Amino acid sequence: MSRIETDSLGPVEVPQDAYWGAQTQRSLINFAIGQERMPLAVSHALALIKKAAARVNDRNGDLPADIARLIEQAADEVLDGQLDEQFPLVVWQTGSGTQSNMNVNEVIAGRANELAGQSRGGKSPVHPNDHVNRSQSSNDCFPTAMNIAAAQAVHDKLLPAIAELSSGLAELSARHHKLVKTGRTHMMDATPITFGQEISAFVAQLDYAQRAIRAALPAVYELAQGGTAVGTGLNAPHGFAEAVAAELAALSGLPFVTAPNKFAALAGHEPLVNLAGALKSLAVALMKIANDLRLLGSGPRAGLAEVRLPANEPGSSIMPGKVNPTQCEALSMLACQVLGNDVTIGFAASQGHLQLNVYKPVIIHNLLQSINLLADGCSNFQQHCVAGIEPDAEQMAEHLERGLMLVTALNPHIGYDKAAEIAKKAYSEGTTLREAALALQYLTNEQFDQWVRPENMLAPGAKG
Amino acid sequence: MSRIETDSLGPVEVPQDAYWGAQTQRSLINFAIGQERMPLAVSHALALIKKAAARVNDRNGDLPADIARLIEQAADEVLDGQLDEQFPLVVWQTGSGTQSNMNVNEVIAGRANELAGQSRGGKSPVHPNDHVNRSQSSNDCFPTAMNIAAAQAVHDKLLPAIAELSSGLAELSARHHKLVKTGRTHMMDATPITFGQEISAFVAQLDYAQRAIRAALPAVYELAQGGTAVGTGLNAPHGFAEAVAAELAALSGLPFVTAPNKFAALAGHEPLVNLAGALKSLAVALMKIANDLRLLGSGPRAGLAEVRLPANEPGSSIMPGKVNPTQCEALSMLACQVLGNDVTIGFAASQGHLQLNVYKPVIIHNLLQSINLLADGCSNFQQHCVAGIEPDAEQMAEHLERGLMLVTALNPHIGYDKAAEIAKKAYSEGTTLREAALALQYLTNEQFDQWVRPENMLAPGAKG
Amino acid sequence: MSRIETDSLGPVEVPQDAYWGAQTQRSLINFAIGQERMPLAVSHALALIKKAAARVNDRNGDLPADIARLIEQAADEVLDGQLDEQFPLVVWQTGSGTQSNMNVNEVIAGRANELAGQSRGGKSPVHPNDHVNRSQSSNDCFPTAMNIAAAQAVHDKLLPAIAELSSGLAELSARHHKLVKTGRTHMMDATPITFGQEISAFVAQLDYAQRAIRAALPAVYELAQGGTAVGTGLNAPHGFAEAVAAELAALSGLPFVTAPNKFAALAGHEPLVNLAGALKSLAVALMKIANDLRLLGSGPRAGLAEVRLPANEPGSSIMPGKVNPTQCEALSMLACQVLGNDVTIGFAASQGHLQLNVYKPVIIHNLLQSINLLADGCSNFQQHCVAGIEPDAEQMAEHLERGLMLVTALNPHIGYDKAAEIAKKAYSEGTTLREAALALQYLTNEQFDQWVRPENMLAPGAKG
Amino acid sequence: MSRIETDSLGPVEVPQDAYWGAQTQRSLINFAIGQERMPLAVSHALALIKKAAARVNDRNGDLPADIARLIEQAADEVLDGQLDEQFPLVVWQTGSGTQSNMNVNEVIAGRANELAGQSRGGKSPVHPNDHVNRSQSSNDCFPTAMNIAAAQAVHDKLLPAIAELSSGLAELSARHHKLVKTGRTHMMDATPITFGQEISAFVAQLDYAQRAIRAALPAVYELAQGGTAVGTGLNAPHGFAEAVAAELAALSGLPFVTAPNKFAALAGHEPLVNLAGALKSLAVALMKIANDLRLLGSGPRAGLAEVRLPANEPGSSIMPGKVNPTQCEALSMLACQVLGNDVTIGFAASQGHLQLNVYKPVIIHNLLQSINLLADGCSNFQQHCVAGIEPDAEQMAEHLERGLMLVTALNPHIGYDKAAEIAKKAYSEGTTLREAALALQYLTNEQFDQWVRPENMLAPGAKG
Repeated sequence: MSRIETDSLGPVEVPQDAYWGAQTQRSLINFAIGQERMPLAVSHALALIKKAAARVNDRNGDLPADIARLIEQAADEVLDGQLDEQFPLVVWQTGSGTQSNMNVNEVIAGRANELAGQSRGGKSPVHPNDHVNRSQSSNDCFPTAMNIAAAQAVHDKLLPAIAELSSGLAELSARHHKLVKTGRTHMMDATPITFGQEISAFVAQLDYAQRAIRAALPAVYELAQGGTAVGTGLNAPHGFAEAVAAELAALSGLPFVTAPNKFAALAGHEPLVNLAGALKSLAVALMKIANDLRLLGSGPRAGLAEVRLPANEPGSSIMPGKVNPTQCEALSMLACQVLGNDVTIGFAASQGHLQLNVYKPVIIHNLLQSINLLADGCSNFQQHCVAGIEPDAEQMAEHLERGLMLVTALNPHIGYDKAAEIAKKAYSEGTTLREAALALQYLTNEQFDQWVRPENMLAPGAKG
Repeated sequence: MSRIETDSLGPVEVPQDAYWGAQTQRSLINFAIGQERMPLAVSHALALIKKAAARVNDRNGDLPADIARLIEQAADEVLDGQLDEQFPLVVWQTGSGTQSNMNVNEVIAGRANELAGQSRGGKSPVHPNDHVNRSQSSNDCFPTAMNIAAAQAVHDKLLPAIAELSSGLAELSARHHKLVKTGRTHMMDATPITFGQEISAFVAQLDYAQRAIRAALPAVYELAQGGTAVGTGLNAPHGFAEAVAAELAALSGLPFVTAPNKFAALAGHEPLVNLAGALKSLAVALMKIANDLRLLGSGPRAGLAEVRLPANEPGSSIMPGKVNPTQCEALSMLACQVLGNDVTIGFAASQGHLQLNVYKPVIIHNLLQSINLLADGCSNFQQHCVAGIEPDAEQMAEHLERGLMLVTALNPHIGYDKAAEIAKKAYSEGTTLREAALALQYLTNEQFDQWVRPENMLAPGAKG
Repeated sequence: MSRIETDSLGPVEVPQDAYWGAQTQRSLINFAIGQERMPLAVSHALALIKKAAARVNDRNGDLPADIARLIEQAADEVLDGQLDEQFPLVVWQTGSGTQSNMNVNEVIAGRANELAGQSRGGKSPVHPNDHVNRSQSSNDCFPTAMNIAAAQAVHDKLLPAIAELSSGLAELSARHHKLVKTGRTHMMDATPITFGQEISAFVAQLDYAQRAIRAALPAVYELAQGGTAVGTGLNAPHGFAEAVAAELAALSGLPFVTAPNKFAALAGHEPLVNLAGALKSLAVALMKIANDLRLLGSGPRAGLAEVRLPANEPGSSIMPGKVNPTQCEALSMLACQVLGNDVTIGFAASQGHLQLNVYKPVIIHNLLQSINLLADGCSNFQQHCVAGIEPDAEQMAEHLERGLMLVTALNPHIGYDKAAEIAKKAYSEGTTLREAALALQYLTNEQFDQWVRPENMLAPGAKG
Repeated sequence: MSRIETDSLGPVEVPQDAYWGAQTQRSLINFAIGQERMPLAVSHALALIKKAAARVNDRNGDLPADIARLIEQAADEVLDGQLDEQFPLVVWQTGSGTQSNMNVNEVIAGRANELAGQSRGGKSPVHPNDHVNRSQSSNDCFPTAMNIAAAQAVHDKLLPAIAELSSGLAELSARHHKLVKTGRTHMMDATPITFGQEISAFVAQLDYAQRAIRAALPAVYELAQGGTAVGTGLNAPHGFAEAVAAELAALSGLPFVTAPNKFAALAGHEPLVNLAGALKSLAVALMKIANDLRLLGSGPRAGLAEVRLPANEPGSSIMPGKVNPTQCEALSMLACQVLGNDVTIGFAASQGHLQLNVYKPVIIHNLLQSINLLADGCSNFQQHCVAGIEPDAEQMAEHLERGLMLVTALNPHIGYDKAAEIAKKAYSEGTTLREAALALQYLTNEQFDQWVRPENMLAPGAKG
């Protein structure tokens, strides 16, 4: 069953149960490309804009109060997730996102008209362009929605997820702050550290990443809304930009403001490029964390085997008892995705022409995917991996005991050259340092006990 | 409603209507990350492997005939698309794809058992590991499925779509092979070309891309199957690798063979990296084509306006009559995506360790997305853009007439210096070349007509 | 002529005139890869560290005063650029940069010994390890030098160059803030803007980029120095980290501080990844600026031709009078380089293992190249392009006059539908809006004059 | 001391000893950007083109024989490397490479005039444009030189270097084809392989890469020469393209042919993008190889320690006896560079407009850097690392003995479930498999000896 909707190119058949209108339908026909839907977060952000604009237009007398109220009501249903299946368009459409903006305009009008007692869809009493899109243009709505969706996802999902993982790691670090083990540089044995110190690096790396992400937000809070078609604000009343930004800030609880230069806000996306760069610094940190934990957990018999990662799934169907670091794998795979997405975003953002960048959908698709993957990844990794990590203190002790780099502690007592002789002898003969040292008669067993103390090699002021 | 399925870690609640078992369910619980599903093409390729393996195992006496038949029957239903909703796992799982391999094993067993008159699911008479996965390991199944899915998508979708676009452009080129217009280098006016010549470059660029893609395929046809857990082929019978490859070739119609080195086939993905690079050369060509057509179509009054792109949607709600090059925009956006995906693929493929690369899901997810976007993009662009392109011969003629680079034709008659003087005078005074030439009295009106003939400047042997 | 220098592996022949020693020489032999030298800025930053460390060691009594003085003196010569040819190592060496740190240690010791009246090189009275490298390790020196070199290049070169270009563009914008012209979205004619507004977008884009770069600096100011071999600070005295950071701040004038977590400072480079992301936002803005100016300058007869870029070189040898936007080309090429470098940096930074990231040289090589290219690019572009840009007001006026999107101004007077009819008639018949409007008798000539005023369509409050 | 040279913009001061002329000098002034010189390989390739063109022009009667001879003579000096310091231009110039083409034209003319008894430089008797550039344009010369330089570097440097490394690895593999050790998947212990099998994967990965590189060459052999300014061949005689390609093939020994479509050859660089993708597959393989070897070489006491890499340099100044996998580090760093360069190349190649891509210098700069780094990297890695690798057979045996995945061999004898029970018991109690098996009384000591034989688990047909 279908009904007829029209736009300036004429009539189009639309499915009977759809709230959308002619322009959404045309996009479905003209862009049969891929499966990647415009993120719902963008449609929701557009609905928030429609709500805010309706309020401002109402206050300004640019929209009848009852029309404004109907728009708000329908927008609230969108925001509530009740109409999520009404946004079927793919990312690969017009580069301004006009079709998704019209999709939201049409669905809100179509639902508002139903609320007003008319049949679903149509343009009366609420018109998708004249009323829902009042004082707006796709060219300012869509970039505004991009920034809102990105900022909300960072705030609501990503920053809490980083904090969750960071807390988990900090707790693990604190729990083992005195557990001494072999340090490694160049993947080779080095002087000792504690397991707590080792894990503390992860916390610090996450902290750099979240600082970078936070530092990228102020520019993202600056909204294009009010620039309308080319940035001049033609057709929007004086003060509209500022009023809508204030309304959006109030509705969202985030400190949105109007962008100081609307031409740049339509034609460039430097703030999102920079945010993507900050996300990359998080991905880079997560890659390191995942790699380290899988390396420390390697074994159980022919690897480092200094930590035990939780066994969440059966191992191989051929190999009984095999446990794999699957959480590390998922996390490092999504880090690769974030690095690739960053390239897509930078490339796309560089390709604007004159008064508009027309790569908006691909930018926000990649940015939101990265934010969501990082958020889910951090949280999932904490719950299914970090929370269950246990060090193997015995293995750590054995590695430390057998290690040769403790010889560094002898430097101040017998000199670098004799220390080196001990280390080389122990290595070539496969003995412990103690055995080699005693064989060379450079020190007594008691002196070895007194001087070679890993627990004294863990902080500045220690003399190796 | 749920039922209980078990694996070596114990019992798990599974939805009553699901065909999958415990391991699939555990993955759903442990990997709540993102929305990106494992591509169906991979699950279908895995089902094809299960079918081929069942046949070979049957012939080898490694599987009872009735079990083999049940597996084939269930696999055929998967291949037919009847069970598509039974593959719910996301990309962000274990990096070997084990969970998706088990998902297919479980669904085929679960459906085979139902076909055998048992209740849905379970392990009897058909066992997901012992029977469906017989002589296999996830570690060889999954990379085999990656190569099959990629090769099929290239063959069935991408190459035909390139051919479709290429034919459309070739036809456009042929139709206008004598339409003379201004050439442009550095985006500045240059000596003349024909519109047909201009479009022929696109055809040639696509030809380079498809040659590159075809040249990348032979390595993709080499399958990992038979390497089992670490590449040695432990637990697979002698000759299994060759027999399964032959079966897969017969079933698919593509020239699959067994990989000469199974260790590399599990641990590296150079053939897919190289295919991704070839896809990038296509994306690069499409970016150029989309950019050129939107530039030539710019206007209608304050742009080049040498071609008219079809008007598929209404223009701006503010600006009546506005038509935008939306198909160019979709195509260039997806080209950006392909370039980013290529980075993800290369990064992920570089990160294998010893006997296994555990970034397989993210590699195939990106590769198939790129192939599908390029295929849909080429086809959609042909149908909704290229097919409707018309040159504006009048505008081309006017540009040509007003152009200054035709002066090049005077070099052999009056010398470079006088020719330059004419061009500079025409430019600074805003006149035509003819006016400037006559004013300078370097040649007569008749000589100008005789010497300045764009149609003589279009091929080697012409003297400019 | 050569002399013999030794290290723990034995004697090595070193060129007679070289100040370096055995370890530098071994690196030259073992790493015959590529032409890319370790950036001099890194060697200079290492020399600054050696100077600062000598002062602190002197104050702490860890170094004899005369040795400290000799080190400072030799370090000053390095900082002065007098010994630049003494740093011959390539980027493709050990990933900790140890060999370049030893190169600086050896050159400073070798020169200090000469200053002390000994022959060039050697280890007495000043020893490269025991004295020049005192309280340090390559593992903390090199990342410290990376951050110093990056911060200095940003401060001394990049931020001033951005300011220079930004001022030039702001001046161009101000000079033409009332020059009305056609706006363009989707590369198609749109409603009017002023040339000043158009250029103001560039200034705003640069401003976003420089804000992003500045926001990335605080984390870069946090230095690894004091972490020594694995981050514990073994062999450095208490307080050394803080004292050296303070000394480096004093010597450089930049607000360096000691990093809160040294383990992360050796093993990760998130602050540099984030800085690279901020640089990318600058590259993206420059790409847009270069592309827009070359598009606006296209022609002179068959392009937009709304601006004239300075003619800095002769045109084509075949085509007299041809002028190309070569400055735009150089700028956009280097933007491509910066995007690629960003990928290298992110990839490399993600690959640390446990207590050390061993991709340090490739990270700083790419980061400094990007900073330098962006700095030179901004400055060169201002001087050789922006400073000479002139709008073609006549061409702008003609485009505006002929444009169809001014019809938007009629909406409030005659309604969208009649306005659309006028625009379509004008387009299909190739007439002006006025001609079409009068032919349709929808308004009088006087009304057209009164209503269609581009100068009234340039700001919010205007009604199109 | 300087002299005056002129071009169509007027006189320019040129250093007295330079062979170049006005246009080279202007580029030096106008493009003070970065330190990256146009690769010498490009200048040499341009000289080869000049030589080939002079011969063809001579045969065609388009150039006096003595002029042609002088050009050849000067070009030979360039090819001989005698004039390398005469090509000072940077990469960041005009995007067509016109200035570097003119640099070569000017230097050849300047030297030819000197050979003819005139003073250095100037335009008589040999004129840089009229004679050296005869029948050519920068727009076809430069892309021709790009393809020649890339093809030569691949042939002369890269393919031999891959073969060198591949032979070294193949030899290592063969030498140890029976040395059994623990296999690892997911970085966890798995069923056994031989060290020879493990290394054979590297050989196979390199083979995929070199096949990909070879497959990319045919398109690179297709040359733009003969297309002149816009691809039409204006000003080149009929047959010039074919004749020059044949001459270049004869001179170089490589199978160059003329490109079938000159418009595409000027405006796109798909063949180089695809070559870059093939290079990336090599970089990816090298990354894996370097990572694996450093992992296998980790230790010496607290790592896997299954192989010993050669010790080429002294270890840490603090830690006596420390040996680092520095060759792995250099190799993996340059792999990162190649991945970033690939992004730059793809981005740049996508940005052509109409009849010309003006990102040529940045493309060839990155491509040649990647080729050279990969070539030097492969060769250096073979000589300074692979050639000296020794397995530690004792450590391998111990890992194997202690491993739990040998339990797989018991499946056919006692069933998967009992085998799993043994493995779990051994793991949780820290015993060997044998101990756990005997304790559980599932088999006898003799049966264990008979069934658990790693040497029987290395090929298909083995039953685990």
